[in-house]
Amino acid sequence: GMDAAPEIESADGFSFKPFGRLQLDAGMTALPDGLARGDGFGAEIRRARVGVEGTIPGGFGYKIEIDVATGEAELTDALLTYEAGDVELTAGQHNTFQGLEELTSSRFTSFIERAAFTDAFGFERRLGVSAQYGSGPVLVQAGVFADTIADLPESDAWSVDGRVVYFPVVAGTQFHVGGSVHYTEVDDGGTVRYRQRPLVHFTAERLINTGTLAGDSEFGLGLELAAIRGPFHFAAEGFRQQVSGLGLADETASFHGGYIEGGLFLTRDDTRGYRGGRWNRTRPARPVGEGGIGAVQANLRYDYLELNDRRVRIVGGSQNAYQGSLVWTTTDYTRFQVNYAHIAYDEAVFALPDGTRDYSADVIGMRAEIDF
Amino acid sequence: GMDAAPEIESADGFSFKPFGRLQLDAGMTALPDGLARGDGFGAEIRRARVGVEGTIPGGFGYKIEIDVATGEAELTDALLTYEAGDVELTAGQHNTFQGLEELTSSRFTSFIERAAFTDAFGFERRLGVSAQYGSGPVLVQAGVFADTIADLPESDAWSVDGRVVYFPVVAGTQFHVGGSVHYTEVDDGGTVRYRQRPLVHFTAERLINTGTLAGDSEFGLGLELAAIRGPFHFAAEGFRQQVSGLGLADETASFHGGYIEGGLFLTRDDTRGYRGGRWNRTRPARPVGEGGIGAVQANLRYDYLELNDRRVRIVGGSQNAYQGSLVWTTTDYTRFQVNYAHIAYDEAVFALPDGTRDYSADVIGMRAEIDF
Amino acid sequence: GMDAAPEIESADGFSFKPFGRLQLDAGMTALPDGLARGDGFGAEIRRARVGVEGTIPGGFGYKIEIDVATGEAELTDALLTYEAGDVELTAGQHNTFQGLEELTSSRFTSFIERAAFTDAFGFERRLGVSAQYGSGPVLVQAGVFADTIADLPESDAWSVDGRVVYFPVVAGTQFHVGGSVHYTEVDDGGTVRYRQRPLVHFTAERLINTGTLAGDSEFGLGLELAAIRGPFHFAAEGFRQQVSGLGLADETASFHGGYIEGGLFLTRDDTRGYRGGRWNRTRPARPVGEGGIGAVQANLRYDYLELNDRRVRIVGGSQNAYQGSLVWTTTDYTRFQVNYAHIAYDEAVFALPDGTRDYSADVIGMRAEIDF
Repeated sequence: GMDAAPEIESADGFSFKPFGRLQLDAGMTALPDGLARGDGFGAEIRRARVGVEGTIPGGFGYKIEIDVATGEAELTDALLTYEAGDVELTAGQHNTFQGLEELTSSRFTSFIERAAFTDAFGFERRLGVSAQYGSGPVLVQAGVFADTIADLPESDAWSVDGRVVYFPVVAGTQFHVGGSVHYTEVDDGGTVRYRQRPLVHFTAERLINTGTLAGDSEFGLGLELAAIRGPFHFAAEGFRQQVSGLGLADETASFHGGYIEGGLFLTRDDTRGYRGGRWNRTRPARPVGEGGIGAVQANLRYDYLELNDRRVRIVGGSQNAYQGSLVWTTTDYTRFQVNYAHIAYDEAVFALPDGTRDYSADVIGMRAEIDF
Repeated sequence: GMDAAPEIESADGFSFKPFGRLQLDAGMTALPDGLARGDGFGAEIRRARVGVEGTIPGGFGYKIEIDVATGEAELTDALLTYEAGDVELTAGQHNTFQGLEELTSSRFTSFIERAAFTDAFGFERRLGVSAQYGSGPVLVQAGVFADTIADLPESDAWSVDGRVVYFPVVAGTQFHVGGSVHYTEVDDGGTVRYRQRPLVHFTAERLINTGTLAGDSEFGLGLELAAIRGPFHFAAEGFRQQVSGLGLADETASFHGGYIEGGLFLTRDDTRGYRGGRWNRTRPARPVGEGGIGAVQANLRYDYLELNDRRVRIVGGSQNAYQGSLVWTTTDYTRFQVNYAHIAYDEAVFALPDGTRDYSADVIGMRAEIDF
Repeated sequence: GMDAAPEIESADGFSFKPFGRLQLDAGMTALPDGLARGDGFGAEIRRARVGVEGTIPGGFGYKIEIDVATGEAELTDALLTYEAGDVELTAGQHNTFQGLEELTSSRFTSFIERAAFTDAFGFERRLGVSAQYGSGPVLVQAGVFADTIADLPESDAWSVDGRVVYFPVVAGTQFHVGGSVHYTEVDDGGTVRYRQRPLVHFTAERLINTGTLAGDSEFGLGLELAAIRGPFHFAAEGFRQQVSGLGLADETASFHGGYIEGGLFLTRDDTRGYRGGRWNRTRPARPVGEGGIGAVQANLRYDYLELNDRRVRIVGGSQNAYQGSLVWTTTDYTRFQVNYAHIAYDEAVFALPDGTRDYSADVIGMRAEIDF
């Protein structure tokens, strides 16, 4: 078969497929005058990934992917799988079942970057083994992980992660309800740090930031809700991250983040793709090249992140972001989008000359992307 | 279709093609006795590139390529394109329309390295957007670029670049006349440096070198002439590079370089490939493997580079290089070449023990290459 | 044709094949209490490689492969070949004919890591040119090499390497007798260091280690013996490494290593793959997915390494390792293995609190792997 790249299959059950994506970002960040931090125009290649995946008769599969967006190669997924009925076992570097948006491919998200908490709380791929059970509208995922391979074999960090999703179709509406739980041991002598950029990735400025915390372990809880009906979709997630073992008093700090979003396709017959507990590819009903203009989708999001815990004297700041995106999916494999965010910060880490740490930033981000 | 690597196409207009090249270099540099710089035998993998390119129905296309010649990966091209009639739009990291030889693939050049000015004046791929108009023998290219992705998103450098080429066939002769213009803003606090090795890339010695110049902007002008008739070809290019905003007096320095070359195929019925404003693949009339010995081409070049501007007290030195190459294209996808250069330097940056900076170097470079 | 990945061939003689491998390792190292070195659980991606190879009509071929196991890309093979009858010429970065196990793909070895001497004596791919003659059961290989490309073009190290193998089938038994010889000039001002980890790669501890030796050249001699008969195999190799030009007295030190191993397939009709002077792929008679359980192989090995030369006052220590492996080849392209080693060290480089340097380590290594 052929999507944008060919999937080559043999009669006896082998398959092989190259794949990749290219995302080009540009835009503006506007920080308050007097903050003396970098803003203005920015641009970068956000992702330039290529990979291969395939299957071996007997139930085995594999995937290796690298990202060369920075100009150097970085390994993302490197995994082998074994499928037996409703259960799939995975070994290698892969995602740790963090939640709906984090597990959704960046090709299929509704904003240029995922919700603030997904980056702030350090979600990443790790080397581990996991099992996934899927039957009808039920998905159960659980795994045990060492650290990310860039930190292995030296690191002795590890985690256990699990996620459950129920995604029935009821009266023509696709529902999604999920929850995830995470326990992570920090590398011996290691630290954590929670921080976040204003929406776009091409800025180096992070206005909220806990700074380095010498914690022993993290405990995370996530909740996911979503629904799709015709041109409409709704999504909301919340995540609470606790870090324990802080300081001599062995204290525990809690931080949390979440978002709520709604979207609407302005073009006729288009709907958001969804499959198996994740957002999936939007396939325009009338793509460019077949007499149409593609699918145009408008989305609104409120994105909250709180990096304060006064009980333990940590003030990293908080954000209330009001975001809109316009996503133009010209064909199954090409998209263009413009995002705008107004982000109100409280107790940001950088102060204005008059000492105030409560101010706002405005951000515009654009992306052109293609995948295959 | 299949060249050396398959181009896989679907009935509905998708295409996908992996490609790559491998260039192995070895040779000798002979510098004057007493210069106390490294010379002698040298070898390296000059390029080891792999990439993928393809098209998506609706007019979209993409290309991602990495080079792993140094042992690590480096991104070269990463771009997406949109074609509408005679106009092609490109976004991503790509060449900035620098000139005939710089835009010609290293697989199709007539010498082991391009003319001295192309390297000296810092031509490179940059992240940007561009448009290209091509109709018959006319090609117009223009774009606006940020910096190279290795320096993004931090850098705020940018450039505008344009090029026009006219390439008619007149009385059985392929002509090529072109010009390009370039304006580059240097990154805030950044510098430029113009310098060049003696022909081959496997030496680290650069005998002419302006040293670091704290300029604000560059302005470049290039001229291109070429012709092909049967086994003969001729080519000449000149480039003038100005750097402004030097020092407290805000001075402007000018440097220039250029070459003139002629070539001849010694084997019957062979001719130099050309397409759309660039040299193209040589396809031997009688390749190895089909009863022939491939195509053998002899080339002579004079390559000049001047890195002095006495008005602003910059003496980087100059070179007059006399070069010959013998290129044996055994098949459409394999080539072997030997190059020789005698390079006369004036005011080179390294002095002999007696203080003289006018001397010469001799260089032999060999390359074995394959592409697919 | 299609193995795990497709080999695409054109009617006129082009071929193109992507390939790769993924090896996931985990296990334990147990060092003596009181040694104060890191041990315990470890895990890593041992290899994550992707590459392409192909042929061009006329006798030409190529191969480019990168490894991204550390999270960054590293070039392994990058070579072009020319075949004329029984002779194959190779140029590029490739192995230097070090011996049976080193030249065998890590996909086909009988233990999780190769014999201790292969790593200790610094075997590596280098940029060079070589010729190989193969006719019936005779293989002759010789080449001249510069350094590895990560050290080029700066390094002026070089080597000449040769190997001869005779591998007749006599009375249903595949025999293998080989020898190799190596001379290496060390980079000017360079050094050598011979050391080795306890079996597995995911530990950073090397308990035997000559430390840095300022030698001028190395001279190596290797011997290889192996046999396969039905489910049984036997293998033994020895290698003597001399380093000359040590110190003011221009002394020469000798070190040596070797192993002897036997293996047995516990599953019916399985046998070890062999081809052209190297171990080759095990293809289970009854793979998973076709009603079988794959091939199960048990192997025992004694692995010796001596890094002492008292004549020149070098005491790097020695190891006597007793190793067992259980290799479960589920399909032609997937394997799982468990290894155990008890390694007795004499004069190890790290002392216990009571000063003793004679002690032992125990190691368990597991690997899941897939290739295509």
